[in-house]
Amino acid sequence: MSLAGWNDTIAAIATAPGIAAIGVVRLSGSESFDIIKSLFPSKNLKEAPTHTIHVGYLRAGDLPVDEVVVSLYRAPKSYTGEDVIEISCHGSPYVQEQVLQACINAGARLARPGEFTQRAFLNGKLDLTQAEAVADLIASNTEASRKAALHNIRGGFSHVLKDLREQLIRFSALIELELDFSQEDVEFADRTALQELIIRIRKIVRSLLDSFKLGNVIKNGVSVAIVGKPNAGKSTLLNTLLNENRAIVSEIAGTTRDTIEEVLNIDGILFRLIDTAGIRDSEDTIEIIGVERSLEKMKTADIVVYLFDTHTETPHELEAALNRLRSVNPEWLAVGNKTDLDGLESTMQKFGFPETIFVSAKSHLHIDLLKQRLVDKVMHGRVQAENTIVTNARHYHALNEVEKSLHDIESGIYKHIPGDLLAIDIRRCLHYLGEITGEVTSEDQLDYIFSKFCIGK
Amino acid sequence: MSLAGWNDTIAAIATAPGIAAIGVVRLSGSESFDIIKSLFPSKNLKEAPTHTIHVGYLRAGDLPVDEVVVSLYRAPKSYTGEDVIEISCHGSPYVQEQVLQACINAGARLARPGEFTQRAFLNGKLDLTQAEAVADLIASNTEASRKAALHNIRGGFSHVLKDLREQLIRFSALIELELDFSQEDVEFADRTALQELIIRIRKIVRSLLDSFKLGNVIKNGVSVAIVGKPNAGKSTLLNTLLNENRAIVSEIAGTTRDTIEEVLNIDGILFRLIDTAGIRDSEDTIEIIGVERSLEKMKTADIVVYLFDTHTETPHELEAALNRLRSVNPEWLAVGNKTDLDGLESTMQKFGFPETIFVSAKSHLHIDLLKQRLVDKVMHGRVQAENTIVTNARHYHALNEVEKSLHDIESGIYKHIPGDLLAIDIRRCLHYLGEITGEVTSEDQLDYIFSKFCIGK
Repeated sequence: MSLAGWNDTIAAIATAPGIAAIGVVRLSGSESFDIIKSLFPSKNLKEAPTHTIHVGYLRAGDLPVDEVVVSLYRAPKSYTGEDVIEISCHGSPYVQEQVLQACINAGARLARPGEFTQRAFLNGKLDLTQAEAVADLIASNTEASRKAALHNIRGGFSHVLKDLREQLIRFSALIELELDFSQEDVEFADRTALQELIIRIRKIVRSLLDSFKLGNVIKNGVSVAIVGKPNAGKSTLLNTLLNENRAIVSEIAGTTRDTIEEVLNIDGILFRLIDTAGIRDSEDTIEIIGVERSLEKMKTADIVVYLFDTHTETPHELEAALNRLRSVNPEWLAVGNKTDLDGLESTMQKFGFPETIFVSAKSHLHIDLLKQRLVDKVMHGRVQAENTIVTNARHYHALNEVEKSLHDIESGIYKHIPGDLLAIDIRRCLHYLGEITGEVTSEDQLDYIFSKFCIGK
Repeated sequence: MSLAGWNDTIAAIATAPGIAAIGVVRLSGSESFDIIKSLFPSKNLKEAPTHTIHVGYLRAGDLPVDEVVVSLYRAPKSYTGEDVIEISCHGSPYVQEQVLQACINAGARLARPGEFTQRAFLNGKLDLTQAEAVADLIASNTEASRKAALHNIRGGFSHVLKDLREQLIRFSALIELELDFSQEDVEFADRTALQELIIRIRKIVRSLLDSFKLGNVIKNGVSVAIVGKPNAGKSTLLNTLLNENRAIVSEIAGTTRDTIEEVLNIDGILFRLIDTAGIRDSEDTIEIIGVERSLEKMKTADIVVYLFDTHTETPHELEAALNRLRSVNPEWLAVGNKTDLDGLESTMQKFGFPETIFVSAKSHLHIDLLKQRLVDKVMHGRVQAENTIVTNARHYHALNEVEKSLHDIESGIYKHIPGDLLAIDIRRCLHYLGEITGEVTSEDQLDYIFSKFCIGK
């Protein structure tokens, strides 16, 4: 796509499809006010001030289409930075289509997905990380994903990247200073400072890279496979976990679309219990451990919960199972089921694995403890959600390139390579930082990024 | 439900569920501005003027929930007549829930379905026919249903009812005049005027009652059963009809929910082709006419299309089929299929039924004519969509009572019954008119009517 089309005034339905109280059609571009004037011939909306609301009948030709509410935003004080108008109409899909059609007949063109936000980016209202966070916020379905996205919309990630860039420029200045000395071939004083600085920069980048594991969890959830012998109580545990959370989960549309997963929201983290239907079906017929399909599940899961019956499983059997588990997936949790509160101490002594949790799925004993352990497994040793977390694979890959450049710079200093060569690595480093914020991103890349947005955003 | 609760400030998500660019949460009630003040501690929204827009971070406690746009409407210049605030947030279902929750935590209560419109009605912003038209407009999925609903939102039906009421009051005045004369036991001059007036009033009411058949069609569509012998070409005709309309139909969400129907929009009227899948399946195996299931379909359909093959069906067979059809459903249309344009005249002569249409489903010959005939069958002799059309069964039943009262008045005059008895019938008549506009409707009735609205409207 060429830059042709960026002067068009665009229109789209911005609310979800379906019958509702209201629907919103959005316009952006230099002709927005001319279009709205033609749709409301009796009102002088063209002269109305920005950030005002007007009620009236939207007309197509002589005929009224709907009674609507019009919100006016004048450039640059708008989402896109252009003249923006939002038309709130009755929430019939048919009526919304008619209102959109009236806008198009009056001179607007149908917006591409994400085109409003793309214009906001092109007009400097947002950098690329903020724009991408808009899409993340719209897709967010847990407290953690909402927080992380909002943090980035507010410029959290941009701020860290700006900080990185400033450090790099400071580093660049030091390099030049060193070069002055090196030409005179003398031992110079601030070599330590140079090394300290590059170490500091790499530390920031590494912590960002580390945060991606959590970021990915926040964005995509954590897959958990609950495995164990038949009659260990897997179905009961699943039901106990799900029932306690059913209310929370059912409120969030779209979380259970994937039919092979049950979704559990614990402390704002989405746990996806993989193919539990399959596990349930197989429970009474086959021994899970050792079966090909279960092995695959265990390999790909983020966490494997090994559930065992504390009454029938022997410590020896448990040890054997856990040894097999260890070789398949390092992230596992052993959970003893059917524990009586009275017999808890003796059961713990019997098995003697300090990391093992003892629960009773049936009587809801220690289920909270199990949930806490699952969350700990995800959050352990990682940055908190209040900090900047890399949730975007594109950012992660660019940061990896930044890290590689930094590594090259560090070893370059060590090897005393010429300053102009170091400068190439620094430019490479700045290039990848610029790719994240969108400063050096190509048009095709941008189109690709925004094409994954909603229509109307 | 008692009137308790009407002083509460209510909140609801007003846009359709699902992921989209934006979602809107709506507040109405005397505490709306206090609530919004607590959600935007840094902004003085409580003092901001009506019909203005404000952008900022909505907060729950110390933490930002979302960056939102707030639209302010001060009583009485709002939809409900109360202080109304609309919060436009990012269109994640999770975020919308959080924004709604923040409003509820700040003192709002979750709105019941239709409660915003119910408040608008109670505050005199709309009469009941207008309020009901809001729900009709939201449910509208064709041009005709949109037009009819918008006409009534704009007070089209209310105006007719007001006119009726005025006529009744004029009539009442004339009755009193006649009573003066009758007590003197003299022949009086304006007896003719009295009769003319009641005839005029009844004529209005009858035309409204007549319009309900069209109104029902506009609101609920027209069911069409296409029947005929195997190999008459029913599937081809269906596909031809549907393919030409596919684009229009597919744009309207929800029209094809009922899986046993295919939906066809012709000139803004929805034609529902009943159980065509069944007809298709049975085409090659059974003769449609005479089969029990098809008979039932034919009986309940608004229109039956009898399709026959002009090459294989004899005029005698056609006549027999149409005779059977007539006894089952008076609304039928005979359509000869597989007509060649060259042989059209001789085919018409061969069958000699002037009402029969000759088409070729395969080569799209005269399909437009068939569509026109279907529309004519529905619209024939009925009021046009520009006029007031009764689309609501509740209104229809009340108007039936109005008509019964008018009948009683007319025969009462004829029988010279005392004026105080006529006055009872007039009051009855006015009562049922008042039921339509909501002046004499009970709280329970109102609750029932509004309970069928969307949440957030």
